[in-house]
Amino acid sequence: MAVSKCTRLSSSLIKPLLDSVDNVLFDCDGVIWRGDQAIPGAPEVINSLKRSGKRVFFLTNNSTKTRKMYAEKLAKLGFEATEDEVFGTAYCSAVYLKTVCNLEGKVYLIGSNAMRQELEAIGIEPVGTGPDPISGGQNDWISVPLDPEVRAVLVGFDEHFSYMKLNRALQYLCNADCQFVGTNTDTRLPLEGGKAVPGTGCILKAVETAAQRNAQVVGKPSSFMFKCMAAQFGLDPSKCLMVGDRLDTDIMLGSTCGLKTLLTLTGVSTVADAEEHQRSGCPKRQGMVPDYYVNSIADILPALQA
Amino acid sequence: MAVSKCTRLSSSLIKPLLDSVDNVLFDCDGVIWRGDQAIPGAPEVINSLKRSGKRVFFLTNNSTKTRKMYAEKLAKLGFEATEDEVFGTAYCSAVYLKTVCNLEGKVYLIGSNAMRQELEAIGIEPVGTGPDPISGGQNDWISVPLDPEVRAVLVGFDEHFSYMKLNRALQYLCNADCQFVGTNTDTRLPLEGGKAVPGTGCILKAVETAAQRNAQVVGKPSSFMFKCMAAQFGLDPSKCLMVGDRLDTDIMLGSTCGLKTLLTLTGVSTVADAEEHQRSGCPKRQGMVPDYYVNSIADILPALQA
Repeated sequence: MAVSKCTRLSSSLIKPLLDSVDNVLFDCDGVIWRGDQAIPGAPEVINSLKRSGKRVFFLTNNSTKTRKMYAEKLAKLGFEATEDEVFGTAYCSAVYLKTVCNLEGKVYLIGSNAMRQELEAIGIEPVGTGPDPISGGQNDWISVPLDPEVRAVLVGFDEHFSYMKLNRALQYLCNADCQFVGTNTDTRLPLEGGKAVPGTGCILKAVETAAQRNAQVVGKPSSFMFKCMAAQFGLDPSKCLMVGDRLDTDIMLGSTCGLKTLLTLTGVSTVADAEEHQRSGCPKRQGMVPDYYVNSIADILPALQA
Repeated sequence: MAVSKCTRLSSSLIKPLLDSVDNVLFDCDGVIWRGDQAIPGAPEVINSLKRSGKRVFFLTNNSTKTRKMYAEKLAKLGFEATEDEVFGTAYCSAVYLKTVCNLEGKVYLIGSNAMRQELEAIGIEPVGTGPDPISGGQNDWISVPLDPEVRAVLVGFDEHFSYMKLNRALQYLCNADCQFVGTNTDTRLPLEGGKAVPGTGCILKAVETAAQRNAQVVGKPSSFMFKCMAAQFGLDPSKCLMVGDRLDTDIMLGSTCGLKTLLTLTGVSTVADAEEHQRSGCPKRQGMVPDYYVNSIADILPALQA
């Protein structure tokens, strides 16, 4: 195996790499699909990996879908996948609150219906989803009714995010005992044609600024999602390959957790980005340099079918 | 005169200090009023200063009122004041866009009706005030209708702040030629009883995170508000005294602009805060140490009436 980093995964290197791992972890958007379209060849790659005896997992920072919704989307696009292979931040945040925060009480949720469902499924009662329009003035806002059983604020993607939600989060977080968790810090959701909409990172930054404290973050590059998966399936990190399109989240998570890493160029990051991190000499930035890269995960298909 | 900093303004020091200046600049909230109540004695202080021949100005980072609205509030609370003595960020942002940005075109405004009025008064057309509820999905959000004449995004306090406004600001700011201005970075609006609601700084941070660039900030501690006032009235900085309750905005502005500075303890900052900055040895933090402090501006009244 090559020891230098950021190596193109040529056809002769694919088989040795796959032989060295038992588990392949895929980020979703920009890796196996873009929006509602599968990356050409991606379903065949994942299905072939499974037939060859590999375990496959899906790791996404996106908080807008439940495990069930992801399993349905995967099936619709031709991927063989089950709910328990999906680790999204809606599900993982619920696990985090339950197992790391040992939460007893309710959660004030800035987030989606999917997050509400995952919390309820694990036995945590969320309050706050849906629109929360402004009314009254400053004196009404400081005395906004709060639920005395709320013990944590959880922030994920919320298209209904508003000043009133920001204010309500601040009023809860003024209590130093109230825990503060965020799904992820991605600043933008990239869409087709180089366009983007604001990501959860913008919403979380507004709440952190108001609260004057930082949230505990569940999503990549934090290692929690891998730990959650590794605990459930008994995974050996050295036997895992992390495949992603973002150096700052996917590849960083892989480096932090001791996984092998593969960058695919169908999404956000480029080889030039990776080389710049490598040349920087900065230890933190070198955690964003992948072991290998491919143009598309479809490039590994011939080796799987050989 | 004392040369050491952070000196209690004892009665013997008041007259020499006032004799050394022609102009006294007051922050408003926490200095001359709290919410809708005048600080006891404050109207008498300001009215006496004027009768003794001093020019008085009012400098506030609050963007929710026009100059006219401030003049009305001042009159109602017993202060003798005129509109042209008031420099709030609603007015100053409009001047900034006109004179510093040389704006030709419209402004996408995340802000209050007061900001809209000040922009219109100076001949700039704002778009975007009022509620902007969410509809549709990501593909609708990236293709949200934009006004092709918008050349700047201005962010101030906006109780109607929403994900859709954040998204619209991002879509405008993806054009590198679109200017980006914020009224102020105060993270909280302090209210009675130690309570607070989220300030403009939270909203601005969300937009900056989405846009991946920093706004030009008009409010204190940026020196623009003083420059604006000094240009209109021909002020000599060494003949000005800045009176405020916040070290990081009011006192910092005073230090940066070469004004004499007086901290009043009826608002946010304490003498202990100032002493900590002084001991820090950090040049930037030492800009937050006032020349003098008083418990309340009412303390200078006897010297004025003598």
